[in-house]
Amino acid sequence: MEKRQIEVCFSPELFRFYKNENAHVVVIDILRATSAICAAFANGAEAIIPVPTIDEAREYKKKGYMVAAERDGVTLDFADFGNSPFNFTPERVMGKTVAYSTTNGTQAITQASVGLNVIIASFLNLSAVSNWLMNQPNGDVLFLCAGWKGRYCTEDSLLAGAIAQKLLESNLFETKCDATYSSIDLWNVAKIDIFLYLERIAQRHRLKRLGLDDVLEYCFTPDSCNKVPFLKDGVIVTE
Amino acid sequence: MEKRQIEVCFSPELFRFYKNENAHVVVIDILRATSAICAAFANGAEAIIPVPTIDEAREYKKKGYMVAAERDGVTLDFADFGNSPFNFTPERVMGKTVAYSTTNGTQAITQASVGLNVIIASFLNLSAVSNWLMNQPNGDVLFLCAGWKGRYCTEDSLLAGAIAQKLLESNLFETKCDATYSSIDLWNVAKIDIFLYLERIAQRHRLKRLGLDDVLEYCFTPDSCNKVPFLKDGVIVTE
Repeated sequence: MEKRQIEVCFSPELFRFYKNENAHVVVIDILRATSAICAAFANGAEAIIPVPTIDEAREYKKKGYMVAAERDGVTLDFADFGNSPFNFTPERVMGKTVAYSTTNGTQAITQASVGLNVIIASFLNLSAVSNWLMNQPNGDVLFLCAGWKGRYCTEDSLLAGAIAQKLLESNLFETKCDATYSSIDLWNVAKIDIFLYLERIAQRHRLKRLGLDDVLEYCFTPDSCNKVPFLKDGVIVTE
Repeated sequence: MEKRQIEVCFSPELFRFYKNENAHVVVIDILRATSAICAAFANGAEAIIPVPTIDEAREYKKKGYMVAAERDGVTLDFADFGNSPFNFTPERVMGKTVAYSTTNGTQAITQASVGLNVIIASFLNLSAVSNWLMNQPNGDVLFLCAGWKGRYCTEDSLLAGAIAQKLLESNLFETKCDATYSSIDLWNVAKIDIFLYLERIAQRHRLKRLGLDDVLEYCFTPDSCNKVPFLKDGVIVTE
């Protein structure tokens, strides 16, 4: 049987060079959008509406939705709360639909709908995503790293590498993609002491300046969420 | 004294997110454009005109220039020769000006003129470039990896990592850039057995299919060239 292909795209700005109609697109924005989305579903959220612009987020607020919205780490003034996974508590999100707008992650999600499925990945659901991908009858896998305002971010490539390595070990997949091999290599360097490794990353310093780096341990602890959020008609849901 | 900053841009398509008027831009296209340019100057070339489009390259041929031009590894029919560093022999290039057009590298060079200087780097002139950058009185350093049609390429990031590591060791520089740290980490994994490491890279397989991977050893052997080609009024020259 022909093996399914794995590719990693390091920035939404490069997505058009990787676009593949036959791929499941796995969106990654570890710090913090896709971690927060996984936290929300682990805590019983019904659905999350990814909202690209601030104006659209404000409209959702006027319509009575609960709105989570930030830019550059800072909660927008009209929003109910911001981008920390710790905000998406059961008390707030259980059974609710949340409109969600962030600096990088939600834009990446909305542009990813070109393949078979769009799914949401973080370390929180690493095993769930890996198993889901292996259990699909077919389809390549394209990891879309949200990055930071077009730039490459280490933390997103680490998760892409961790999942890609699991997929390659299954023997169902192969890769000819440089970014995939590099992500795997970086993951294998980083995992030796992940929190020491993360000391250097730019997003850690951005969050620290805002007093928001309390999420690091949570966002890099695998498998607190067994769900695979996916995009259906523009809304993120789980099965 | 304030340290000078290092950044790495993994694709010309991301260059606008890294643009820095206070940086020396170091263009890297190991396989094969920037290696070929270093080979040309090591063999006595007078100047190289980077030519973005095929039509412009054809015009240079009509004007009587020696033209090196390829797309996707294949020499264009009107050109004198293609993109292999082995083509730029002393017999052909000594004292000559060559018009040069390639799939990725020459475009990257022509878009790089936004900072203090544009210089050309490959493993052939690794030490010369590192020393040149350290000897400048000021200026940040921005590595522009040519990649492959917008995509990330491992080989270019390896050289960026190798030079960045040397610069950081000098203590004149620092970095807050994720792509710089990742390039350094990848270089340190790769250098343990560089030719084994290169087995996996996509560009090696592209060249192999065309019977053009004979350049690999040459392109990854450091310091056969002690020159630092730089862009002056749109033309690549050396001092």
